[in-house]
Amino acid sequence: MLKSALPENGTVTTGPIYRSHKIYNEVPFGDLTLRIPARRIDLTTGEHFDVYDTSGIYTAEDPELDLERGLAPVRTWERAEAVPASEENPSLKVQTQLAWARAGVITPEMAFCAAREGMAPEFVRDEVAAGRAVICANKNHPEIEPMIIGKAFAVKINANIGNSAVTSSIAEEVEKMVWATRWGADTIMDLSTGKDIHETREWILRNSPVPVGTVPIYQALEKVNGDPTRLTWEIYRETIIEQCEQGVDYMTVHAGVLLRYIPLAANRVTGIVSRGGSIMAAWCLKEHRESFLYENFAELCDILAQYDVTFSLGDGLRPGSIADANDEAQLAELKTLGELTLIARSRGVQVMIEGPGHVPMHKIPVNVEWEEDWCHGAPFYTLGPLATDIAPGYDHITSAIGAAMIAQAGTAMLCYVTPKEHLGLPNRDDVKVGVITYKIAAHAADLAKQHPRAQERDDALSKARFEFRWHDQFALALDPDTALEYHDETLPAEPAKTAHFCSMCGPKFCSMRISQDVRDYAAEHGLETVEALEAGMKEKSAEFSAAGDRVYLPVVES
Amino acid sequence: MLKSALPENGTVTTGPIYRSHKIYNEVPFGDLTLRIPARRIDLTTGEHFDVYDTSGIYTAEDPELDLERGLAPVRTWERAEAVPASEENPSLKVQTQLAWARAGVITPEMAFCAAREGMAPEFVRDEVAAGRAVICANKNHPEIEPMIIGKAFAVKINANIGNSAVTSSIAEEVEKMVWATRWGADTIMDLSTGKDIHETREWILRNSPVPVGTVPIYQALEKVNGDPTRLTWEIYRETIIEQCEQGVDYMTVHAGVLLRYIPLAANRVTGIVSRGGSIMAAWCLKEHRESFLYENFAELCDILAQYDVTFSLGDGLRPGSIADANDEAQLAELKTLGELTLIARSRGVQVMIEGPGHVPMHKIPVNVEWEEDWCHGAPFYTLGPLATDIAPGYDHITSAIGAAMIAQAGTAMLCYVTPKEHLGLPNRDDVKVGVITYKIAAHAADLAKQHPRAQERDDALSKARFEFRWHDQFALALDPDTALEYHDETLPAEPAKTAHFCSMCGPKFCSMRISQDVRDYAAEHGLETVEALEAGMKEKSAEFSAAGDRVYLPVVES
Repeated sequence: MLKSALPENGTVTTGPIYRSHKIYNEVPFGDLTLRIPARRIDLTTGEHFDVYDTSGIYTAEDPELDLERGLAPVRTWERAEAVPASEENPSLKVQTQLAWARAGVITPEMAFCAAREGMAPEFVRDEVAAGRAVICANKNHPEIEPMIIGKAFAVKINANIGNSAVTSSIAEEVEKMVWATRWGADTIMDLSTGKDIHETREWILRNSPVPVGTVPIYQALEKVNGDPTRLTWEIYRETIIEQCEQGVDYMTVHAGVLLRYIPLAANRVTGIVSRGGSIMAAWCLKEHRESFLYENFAELCDILAQYDVTFSLGDGLRPGSIADANDEAQLAELKTLGELTLIARSRGVQVMIEGPGHVPMHKIPVNVEWEEDWCHGAPFYTLGPLATDIAPGYDHITSAIGAAMIAQAGTAMLCYVTPKEHLGLPNRDDVKVGVITYKIAAHAADLAKQHPRAQERDDALSKARFEFRWHDQFALALDPDTALEYHDETLPAEPAKTAHFCSMCGPKFCSMRISQDVRDYAAEHGLETVEALEAGMKEKSAEFSAAGDRVYLPVVES
Repeated sequence: MLKSALPENGTVTTGPIYRSHKIYNEVPFGDLTLRIPARRIDLTTGEHFDVYDTSGIYTAEDPELDLERGLAPVRTWERAEAVPASEENPSLKVQTQLAWARAGVITPEMAFCAAREGMAPEFVRDEVAAGRAVICANKNHPEIEPMIIGKAFAVKINANIGNSAVTSSIAEEVEKMVWATRWGADTIMDLSTGKDIHETREWILRNSPVPVGTVPIYQALEKVNGDPTRLTWEIYRETIIEQCEQGVDYMTVHAGVLLRYIPLAANRVTGIVSRGGSIMAAWCLKEHRESFLYENFAELCDILAQYDVTFSLGDGLRPGSIADANDEAQLAELKTLGELTLIARSRGVQVMIEGPGHVPMHKIPVNVEWEEDWCHGAPFYTLGPLATDIAPGYDHITSAIGAAMIAQAGTAMLCYVTPKEHLGLPNRDDVKVGVITYKIAAHAADLAKQHPRAQERDDALSKARFEFRWHDQFALALDPDTALEYHDETLPAEPAKTAHFCSMCGPKFCSMRISQDVRDYAAEHGLETVEALEAGMKEKSAEFSAAGDRVYLPVVES
């Protein structure tokens, strides 16, 4: 991994990724012209390959940046008229993607997402209307390039950043956001828990090209010096409004932690591992009543609806170990999240559902089935899950295994896990490893789901590999810099970039070279096509067919 | 990752792994006493946890080593009498684990493997007799600690080492072998293709505590200066005997590459990617006849039988890209490997079958079904497979996803892939990353298969995590050094090793600490057991039950 030095305070990583450049495809929408971002990879053949790109202007050549002012707004269009929140609440008028979709309106955000994913705007609208997809876009966050999260679309990944009381600065966190989106993060969650929470979030929001999520209870807890039992609805409400005003696009809310579920977690191997979940559990036990999140959920919905902020209903009782996977506490809370989903939708608010955690492979697919059944098809957003507990230091890998499987089963967005999980706060290099690892899991799932276009990149890279177009192989990789660095460790010379072998086998043993020789040999003998080769084989094949295509008989009999 | 410096020429890494020590459990077997190796992890609670250990004497405290003489022999016992190779060949007498098992004999190797896996010797014998498991143990390789490969046993992993014409020395390769087994490699394959092939192999064999595999065609090709078309049966035969005499335990033989299958691979995206496969294809095309491996297969079997060397029937036509997965060429060869399996078994030779390669997740499980059906239940030994082609530099991860899934489906041994795959020769750090990554995939599969004892380690580590026994959490990890290093990056002080938080959340936000507070709170109020807690909840619960356990009603109605 390239250990890129941290940029000086206040600056961030910019410039194109290896042999590619930023492009914008212009798509007309009514009077508007939507500029859909993509990254164009330039191949040595003169062709190019375009990929979905979340990195914003930062990967352009010499981008004009003013971090203090923030990015130029993308969503400059007017919002559509308010429409009824739902059939249940026809008199409640809101301006949310969900309500508009239900009303049959295709918003610029929907058209933008459709163009970005190569789907029809009507399809995007229908998925949002059904609640199977969400577009996280706070009306106060005009800087973002709209994206969609749903099982019918490419699997998305989230990167968590944020300082803690123990380490890291604002400048570091802003750079982590730019760095994470450079490598493919589709959303960012700011989980800051230390000082300057508001300030850190402001810097991230104003400069992020992707939706930003938070867990508001963390900031609320700061306001009561970290004593969960001193939390009140008023403090939480004030915090939510503050963050909605700032432009946060989605919020994790642990409203499903009910008093009667807490005993179910008491004798687990790892108890309650969700920070938000343990905070609410402490509050409920102390107050001996249901949480202020649960009891004021309808009001909470109406606040989020005013900004079109999306709920990410948190799994406060998710399992934190293989032993606790799929247990009663987890399932009880999931059912409650399903009930809250209906309430939120009835008030026009979009909903995602958060999932585990730690789950062995054989218990993974049923998690998606339960979530889709009980939570009415809301997009599932899972943390891994880790497929084993025994590899701290490698939990990006233990969780990539679970993440790929749960995404194949229908999870819409994967929250990354870095090598530092369970051990410490990820640094810049950990963030990159986490993002690339989760791009792998998400793409593997897109392939398994046979998502349109997913395999094109695999085919382009493999073709380059077979043709010894090393530069193209690197350029088409998720992380060209690392691929190039590894190759150059043993064969640094530029000629090696066109050599028909690598140091793994050496020149004499390169199977791809020999494989090419086979083709050349066939060509020399006028057998360059499969048909011709087969014809050339025909006589020989006939002999074997006569022997019933069986193994050379004398061998069997001797 | 700890970048351990390469030891000086001729020395290797020795000494115990963090907070553990080597033990041997003595198991009587007839007049013999078998010494079964294990690694005992010492916990701060005074308890200990024993794990399967492949590292040999190297992880003992100050082991007495003489690399030039090699390890002291473990298999000092006499071999049992020769028995009939099979019902088909009753007059052919051999001394192989397969023939003995069929004759009802339990060998010391079988008893050793049984004790090591915590199974009954009779069960091991029956699995070997059925061909569902193999014990790779050349009679000329007495230094190894016997191990078993089969779907009924713990999933095993292989680490490839070996120098190429381009890089690395003998000393490096011996250290890579010791290093790979230190971290958990169950077998080693020496894929050397450069100079000193015989010498390198001798050093590795004499010093390896685990079975060693090779691909003899590589050395045979060296003897004809790398021109596949100059290969002959005589040269190959001489090479095979040389390696059998040396003590190689299993050999990859690409006898399934038939002339008529070659056209099937000609129009693939990546053609033939197996080195052995492409070598044989080139030979077959030039000679326009079936390979000498195929035509002399029976004689080959009889040579291997003399030493009890196991076949690893190679998949010379395995797919080298997502596009080529599960294609006609791959399947045609697999069927032929099934026919060769019956021939080998009929002559008393043990067989494993090698598998892909590159396969998207949705096409993985059927590979195991085909292999088990067509190859009569022979242990499957796969290379990954990679679940996507787009991440060179991270193919340990792209393949760990596929490896975990294919092992869950029944694959017995996984050949590791390092971060350098497709780019260069792995160095010492790459070998460690590859091994740990594959231990993760194998263990995740053992959990998914609900293998006896598999979850015990997850539970022990998670319990240590919840109780903030940091040292125990590190010690129980697959790679304690890296876990410790990552933790210390942000919280180096020794007190932090007992602190009830980590830098990830900081003291105020540690969910596990808060979770403990919840338990303490419950205890203070006489609610320390689940029952008591539930009792304490009863009144409150009653109210909710009265409301039909539904969400707070006014919310729904307002």
